[in-house]
Amino acid sequence: MMASDDSNSNLPKARIILQQCLSAKLQVQPRTEEQEAQFVEINRGLVVYVCFMKGATSDTVDKMVKAAMNARLSSLDDGTSKLVSILDLPGEVIIIPQATLGGNLKGKMMQYHRNISKEEGLDLYTSFVRQCQDLLEQSNKTKEQHKQVKYGTYGNRQVFSMVTNGPFSHYLEF
Amino acid sequence: MMASDDSNSNLPKARIILQQCLSAKLQVQPRTEEQEAQFVEINRGLVVYVCFMKGATSDTVDKMVKAAMNARLSSLDDGTSKLVSILDLPGEVIIIPQATLGGNLKGKMMQYHRNISKEEGLDLYTSFVRQCQDLLEQSNKTKEQHKQVKYGTYGNRQVFSMVTNGPFSHYLEF
Repeated sequence: MMASDDSNSNLPKARIILQQCLSAKLQVQPRTEEQEAQFVEINRGLVVYVCFMKGATSDTVDKMVKAAMNARLSSLDDGTSKLVSILDLPGEVIIIPQATLGGNLKGKMMQYHRNISKEEGLDLYTSFVRQCQDLLEQSNKTKEQHKQVKYGTYGNRQVFSMVTNGPFSHYLEF
Repeated sequence: MMASDDSNSNLPKARIILQQCLSAKLQVQPRTEEQEAQFVEINRGLVVYVCFMKGATSDTVDKMVKAAMNARLSSLDDGTSKLVSILDLPGEVIIIPQATLGGNLKGKMMQYHRNISKEEGLDLYTSFVRQCQDLLEQSNKTKEQHKQVKYGTYGNRQVFSMVTNGPFSHYLEF
């Protein structure tokens, strides 16, 4: 009983993948009979794939935002190997809700038992996006250069393209 | 002592990210004075980011190959929600060595203490690529339709672009 509780508390409550991009484009509204598909785009910046799992709370979101926005992962391309945060680059951010990231492979099939409910996930996702936007708006460098946070529509298929000069993928769990 | 050994044995020995793509293009040789940059490309298929960490062995590679090539993650796009493996799709595979995936965030900095040595990593990577190629060559569906495994140059910067109809990112650790 004890062992089971312990191991559950160690299971991730959220997962993030971070990738560097030169440009990225994400569909936020599929085509309908009335209108064309809608997209958002960024130039040089950070791609943030995000997934919330059972047990994720607003505390989890705070930690995720802090990590994603402050981690020094972006190269200045000034000939040095110095890495800076996306706020200090400064760069843009594109956030992609990615429920599949919560999957766990059993045999040949992915199971998503640990994913959070759609309603709770949407709340946490909305808060994550808003906090990332707030940080970018408060940062002098990103404000001066009109850098923005773009984001996908929760629950939609994330039709996505990107161009990178090296994605330098990083995995974070919370 | 015991506790430390136990926790180490639970640490991941390898990480994989799998994404679906409609097309993907990867630089395998940067431009030099003598020749243009060299690229490999795939059409519809699977993007496999791979990272080996301390403790990874040929057994780890066997499990990774089996998981990546047999996991039912690819949509048939036949109007059903049926998912099949990349071998059964059939689709192409592009493998990207991604040492950054072994990183662990401490404060604002990524640490890569658990990454395997470059020499060992290259051996495991070479074996991973060859086994994926063997599986694709043995599969009737991929053979008939001339599907191939393409792969990045270990240790290089992975200049990479992709177009997806939804990456449906999955994270696996071994």
